[in-house]
Amino acid sequence: MCDLLRINTDRGVMLNDGKSRFSINGKPIYHFVGGSTFSEYTVCHIGSVAKINPAAPLDKVCILSCGISTGLGAALNVAKPKKGHTVAVFGLGAVGLAAAEGARLSGASRIIGVDLNPSRFNEAKKFGVTEFVNPKDHDKPVQQVIIEMTDGGVDRSIECTGNVRAMISAFECVHDGWGVAVLVGVPGKDDEFKTHPMNLLNERTLKGTFFGNYKPRTDLPGVVEKYMNKELEVEKFITHSIPFSEINKAFDYMLKGEGLRCIIRMEG
Amino acid sequence: MCDLLRINTDRGVMLNDGKSRFSINGKPIYHFVGGSTFSEYTVCHIGSVAKINPAAPLDKVCILSCGISTGLGAALNVAKPKKGHTVAVFGLGAVGLAAAEGARLSGASRIIGVDLNPSRFNEAKKFGVTEFVNPKDHDKPVQQVIIEMTDGGVDRSIECTGNVRAMISAFECVHDGWGVAVLVGVPGKDDEFKTHPMNLLNERTLKGTFFGNYKPRTDLPGVVEKYMNKELEVEKFITHSIPFSEINKAFDYMLKGEGLRCIIRMEG
Repeated sequence: MCDLLRINTDRGVMLNDGKSRFSINGKPIYHFVGGSTFSEYTVCHIGSVAKINPAAPLDKVCILSCGISTGLGAALNVAKPKKGHTVAVFGLGAVGLAAAEGARLSGASRIIGVDLNPSRFNEAKKFGVTEFVNPKDHDKPVQQVIIEMTDGGVDRSIECTGNVRAMISAFECVHDGWGVAVLVGVPGKDDEFKTHPMNLLNERTLKGTFFGNYKPRTDLPGVVEKYMNKELEVEKFITHSIPFSEINKAFDYMLKGEGLRCIIRMEG
Repeated sequence: MCDLLRINTDRGVMLNDGKSRFSINGKPIYHFVGGSTFSEYTVCHIGSVAKINPAAPLDKVCILSCGISTGLGAALNVAKPKKGHTVAVFGLGAVGLAAAEGARLSGASRIIGVDLNPSRFNEAKKFGVTEFVNPKDHDKPVQQVIIEMTDGGVDRSIECTGNVRAMISAFECVHDGWGVAVLVGVPGKDDEFKTHPMNLLNERTLKGTFFGNYKPRTDLPGVVEKYMNKELEVEKFITHSIPFSEINKAFDYMLKGEGLRCIIRMEG
């Protein structure tokens, strides 16, 4: 957690002079999330740049730079399920699928995927999800459904939706005594996480993570190496590859919630 | 966390037949917290009994059986401060003083005691507390005061009051990136722990503990050994020693909040 970079990522301007390096017709265009990578050339703060294996195909590993590493790291670095553990993953978008993949790589034997959209369930199997729960199919709170399915609660749960109700469910469905819940999704500004403190006193742990606890500059090159060594399959995360000229199509897919994980190809 | 014993501790009757072993004039008197130790003879579930070093003086080590072990374990087993860490302890009653002692034994270099009662501050120094904060002395929330004192927050905080506002403050005063807050105090039935989930996403950890994560039967004998080996000074935790015939005096002291940690001596 680097304060300097965090501020730099959010502010949309370079740190040294508080100005943008982009403009159109004299009007400034602000930097986006420290990278502004929808541009042929860009200017980044040194902290936003990581040197990766030059042999890595950029049109694939670029997908590791945000959600995928976040979900993967949430499992591998924070939730750390043990062999044979049961893990619940809330939200089966890109981040949740990566979290499931991380749980699978850790040796979890049951991975319960939770999503409101049943069309996501089939694909999630590729990422190790073994069971599915759609909260809409039940009259009782989803945490109670999961506690009953698992005879007391899951060993680990990972919340990847950003919905505060899902966060609370993810925490309340872990087992007393050793359960760990990890919050990954970015909440709304006015959201409140609420639970009865007795849930904590029963020896549960609640954690959150930013970028899966990876330090981008030092740790991302290692994630790329995992792909190069075939420990991590990046291809299955990619659903579409779209040329830059059709970038708005990609945004349309995303807004329709079709579980798009897309590569935008720069041309020329 | 043994479900069987937990139920047995709360229910006031023996597990096998659901009945009490005490009565007065034919009216049952219920078992208290699995021990009923204000009685000359008692009947306990085997799980409520721990075999300790027979050389240990019972009129001293009896004080290890609840709050003191809880606070000590909250520091040593759960918060686990590292050498040089800064630790905040909320509530300077018996449990909080034991938590401070645990932090001191772990090598914490700053221990910030938080209490509404300034008369507790002086004695707390004996338990390693180096600085004091009385929330009443400040217009801003105590978490903000502590964040300013520590330039970003404490490494560990341990909440020993049971007050849900103190729980929230204890969590919100830990440092982003690595801070761990441990809840020890027993909350009210209708209390709600509330915080903005972003506090968690900033890589903080929130944990709770019951009996300091010690398993009574297997771990309490080891805590007694710490006393026998002079690693742990039990005497400084004892403020009064009162004969059984004056037990109500002890309750009076307790209700007055005078920070009583008392041995009740059985006579005859």
